[in-house]
Amino acid sequence: MFVSEVKIRVRYGETDRMGYVYYGNYAEYFEVARVEALRELGMNYKDMEDSGIMLPVYTLNVKYMKPAFYDDLLTIKTSIREIPKARITFSHEIYNEKKELLNTGEVTLVFIDTKTNKPIGAPENFLEKIRKYY
Amino acid sequence: MFVSEVKIRVRYGETDRMGYVYYGNYAEYFEVARVEALRELGMNYKDMEDSGIMLPVYTLNVKYMKPAFYDDLLTIKTSIREIPKARITFSHEIYNEKKELLNTGEVTLVFIDTKTNKPIGAPENFLEKIRKYY
Amino acid sequence: MFVSEVKIRVRYGETDRMGYVYYGNYAEYFEVARVEALRELGMNYKDMEDSGIMLPVYTLNVKYMKPAFYDDLLTIKTSIREIPKARITFSHEIYNEKKELLNTGEVTLVFIDTKTNKPIGAPENFLEKIRKYY
Amino acid sequence: MFVSEVKIRVRYGETDRMGYVYYGNYAEYFEVARVEALRELGMNYKDMEDSGIMLPVYTLNVKYMKPAFYDDLLTIKTSIREIPKARITFSHEIYNEKKELLNTGEVTLVFIDTKTNKPIGAPENFLEKIRKYY
Repeated sequence: MFVSEVKIRVRYGETDRMGYVYYGNYAEYFEVARVEALRELGMNYKDMEDSGIMLPVYTLNVKYMKPAFYDDLLTIKTSIREIPKARITFSHEIYNEKKELLNTGEVTLVFIDTKTNKPIGAPENFLEKIRKYY
Repeated sequence: MFVSEVKIRVRYGETDRMGYVYYGNYAEYFEVARVEALRELGMNYKDMEDSGIMLPVYTLNVKYMKPAFYDDLLTIKTSIREIPKARITFSHEIYNEKKELLNTGEVTLVFIDTKTNKPIGAPENFLEKIRKYY
Repeated sequence: MFVSEVKIRVRYGETDRMGYVYYGNYAEYFEVARVEALRELGMNYKDMEDSGIMLPVYTLNVKYMKPAFYDDLLTIKTSIREIPKARITFSHEIYNEKKELLNTGEVTLVFIDTKTNKPIGAPENFLEKIRKYY
Repeated sequence: MFVSEVKIRVRYGETDRMGYVYYGNYAEYFEVARVEALRELGMNYKDMEDSGIMLPVYTLNVKYMKPAFYDDLLTIKTSIREIPKARITFSHEIYNEKKELLNTGEVTLVFIDTKTNKPIGAPENFLEKIRKYY
């Protein structure tokens, strides 16, 4: 299984009047985490998109256990639990500095051909890189 | 069952380089939709929060079928399918002007006492207002 | 002089831990205000962009006097003080429901040909529509 | 003069349909840059706020020369050109990896007593830390 970690510091503008990170902002944290996971695998998402494959999000599921606060340095653990086929699923866990689990998120994306706008499978050069982890 | 509708026009800053509304921004659309649903029920969320009851989000589940684009005038249908107890669940459907269903979202929030930070049930004045729909 | 008005209700996610609308979010309010000003003039910004003219922002100047709060229904007054040439400047004033002036913003944008990426002047069909106000 | 540098990688959600970083998002980049500048000076903004001094933004002025794109690793140079008194001004320059100057921003903030909501000057412990640079 492929697992990676990234750290994100909470910005002021990401908090809300409750003092918590606004619940919608975690989607962007997950995005950062999956892009960095791909980079660690040797895939640059921007290059992938520029080469004609995009990965729109199909489902997002988040469970919020504890809030994150301003200036917290969060750790996001990202796992790709299965070798992707038509879709790829990233499983995220966000921890604060006290190592408390704040929330979990699961994001499933679909490989789409930018020109035809149709689903294509995971590209072979990506599969080559990821297979060795399974 | 209580159902309400709100319209939101997509802002430029809410789109991404794909030309779509960024997937994380729907969380804010759902927030607007549920706050307006509460307002229609005669509840002002701000007043509720100021009076000591907050509603942090517990789970968010979104399924994205089609993208929304810049300047689209979206219609968000919001249902509260069950009388809330400790939690309240809002079910959302977002449609574009062609009446295509773009995505569905389900957001569950918990009634929390701001002072004690503990779950309390749905407040009685809220239940009174919502009961007549069921 | 052309003047228009638009109302925006503050979303929860737009506030920060201070309880104020985050200072960066006013840029999006100004964007909504200028797009609605153009619409009132009979110009659709999306259509303009799709037809090959884009309006990237060149300067943004904001002076913050008082904060806006969650759920405030803001009124944004937008003026185009001069007939645009190579650039267009929108002057904004944001008021709350008590008619207090919260902040003022000035945004200057440049007319750019999407294909050549070079400045072109304000398009003639736009000038026709705006001239009668001066 | 005190100068510091911070790097920020552009997130997908920060781009817009033009493919550029949305003009309003630079405000958040400037926020990250000034908070990191303060941290380098030995001041933690969160602690300052928790101890009763907040720094709401008074003016924001940005001049946009070139766009930033998705996944760009930006360098933000931040200078505090003068010892702060009632206000503090941060001057920012944002560069891309090709060392092109993308934009400049100036943000002036006011030292406010959280309890009285009145301006107070820059706190003495902060002045002590910053004086040696001038």
